[in-house]
Amino acid sequence: MKKIILDLDTGIDDALALAYVLGQEAELIGVTTTFGNVLVERATENTLDLLDLFGNETIPVFEGAAHPWGATKYRLSDLVLRVHGQNGLGNVALPRSKRKKELQTGSQFLIEAAKQYGQDLILVATGPMTNLAEAIQLEKAAIETIGRIVIMGGALTVPGNSTKFAEANIYNDPLAANYVLESGIPVTIVGLDVTLKTLISGAPIRAWKQSETFAGKVMAQMAEYYYTNEYENQDIGGAMHDPLAAAIALDPALATHLLPINLTVETAGVSAGRMIGTLPGLLETEKNAQVCLDIDSDTFISRFVQTVDQVIKQAE
Amino acid sequence: MKKIILDLDTGIDDALALAYVLGQEAELIGVTTTFGNVLVERATENTLDLLDLFGNETIPVFEGAAHPWGATKYRLSDLVLRVHGQNGLGNVALPRSKRKKELQTGSQFLIEAAKQYGQDLILVATGPMTNLAEAIQLEKAAIETIGRIVIMGGALTVPGNSTKFAEANIYNDPLAANYVLESGIPVTIVGLDVTLKTLISGAPIRAWKQSETFAGKVMAQMAEYYYTNEYENQDIGGAMHDPLAAAIALDPALATHLLPINLTVETAGVSAGRMIGTLPGLLETEKNAQVCLDIDSDTFISRFVQTVDQVIKQAE
Repeated sequence: MKKIILDLDTGIDDALALAYVLGQEAELIGVTTTFGNVLVERATENTLDLLDLFGNETIPVFEGAAHPWGATKYRLSDLVLRVHGQNGLGNVALPRSKRKKELQTGSQFLIEAAKQYGQDLILVATGPMTNLAEAIQLEKAAIETIGRIVIMGGALTVPGNSTKFAEANIYNDPLAANYVLESGIPVTIVGLDVTLKTLISGAPIRAWKQSETFAGKVMAQMAEYYYTNEYENQDIGGAMHDPLAAAIALDPALATHLLPINLTVETAGVSAGRMIGTLPGLLETEKNAQVCLDIDSDTFISRFVQTVDQVIKQAE
Repeated sequence: MKKIILDLDTGIDDALALAYVLGQEAELIGVTTTFGNVLVERATENTLDLLDLFGNETIPVFEGAAHPWGATKYRLSDLVLRVHGQNGLGNVALPRSKRKKELQTGSQFLIEAAKQYGQDLILVATGPMTNLAEAIQLEKAAIETIGRIVIMGGALTVPGNSTKFAEANIYNDPLAANYVLESGIPVTIVGLDVTLKTLISGAPIRAWKQSETFAGKVMAQMAEYYYTNEYENQDIGGAMHDPLAAAIALDPALATHLLPINLTVETAGVSAGRMIGTLPGLLETEKNAQVCLDIDSDTFISRFVQTVDQVIKQAE
């Protein structure tokens, strides 16, 4: 069975990605956490609480970066607080897990798992790329052996969501994103180019709400908070950013249009966090990034809704 | 035989595109001119002179826009003067044509030709989109019938060349480009994403120089000026922006990777002239633009060099 690690800044769509992976044919060998949608301590707590909720109390959680490269702290933006709520989970209170995070850091676990599983390992990073950057900096040779790295981040052909130039995950740590994308390590980029094709609202998640399990109620409430708040004053639904990245990691065929490209990230100025192709990269035959530019969104959405539904029911 | 119109701001790579089309299996039914690499009057003169040089004294030239939408004049930038020289043709002096421009304007001719040839017509625009925008504004129904519209412009996945956000043709008239791309008329975009894969320098054009015809010497001298000056202080060659657009118009198979997308252009602010996908467009099934993201550059370059070589020899 495929081994998978999720690197989460555990807000609402991270929680949905976690549920999705638990319901798929894959072994989640651990979750690493980072700042982003929440502070890192909250990401760790949310992850432990969610794993308990889904009845997966044995999956270890490794706390990672608390702030971006080049900074000493991280402050939640108004955007993040609006989209994910004060606690990152749409202000839905979960029972507190009795479990604790592991002693290893997020990046240490990524390296250890890479050494143990290599090509058999899939890494899905749905927050700022800080843990991954740190792991590459510490032991690039180990990280290079990972079978597949899928990153939710960036907006290559559409405007960003933190600024018109930058998508939130990359905006939250441009230096780390620059380091990862210029490291030469092969990555698949699942950015706003495709995640904004996965908008869902009330109808698809009605079944979760009606499941009458605690997990069902909680997940439906979180999802409702999310799709109501992601786009202020616009009734267009919420984008399943992180679940899509996880789904493509487990089934690359969901990505129906891939662009091979060598990418960089602007690290300063008005367009800090802008992900863009490099000019020298145009003439290089080796491309280290594959950017998803189209997906089979119908298949994804129905598979996503059903998988989470199943996880909710089994959680009872 | 295919009917083709070139809409040129006749600088050096426009001249090369003109030579290319004259050597291909296509009937150039007219050239429309615009400001851009040069002032429009100069674009008209250069085009007439070049047609004489190549022995094509019967092809009509229609003068188009003198300045961008929303402005009353157009001033040549330092960038343009460096890349194309004071006269737009690398300061190479051509014998002055005795012919004059036609009485119709560029946009009037586009409309008339569209009405006459419709689906059998190919339009290649290698300057600011001002003439095309004006034609759409005047008679959209006619322009909609054109068989294929190929635009050299934009930079979707790489930085621009006028600013890091904007490619020169779009930067020179963002309002017109915005109008064309939001009009819904199907266009193929050949931007820096692919034209920067067509860098040529000395070797390929040695044959032109050695042809010992006047046209050969002139074309080699222009091309040398161009590839020496396009990228200041960088010995990387000159990009065949406009010839590539013409070549893809005549043989779409040269474009090996196309992205269907609905585009817009930013018209103000620091990123004025930035071409980017629209968010609503992500959910629309009809896409009016096809952006070239990869090409068969080897085939293009060899075909381009040989075609121009042949035109030069026939011009004697």
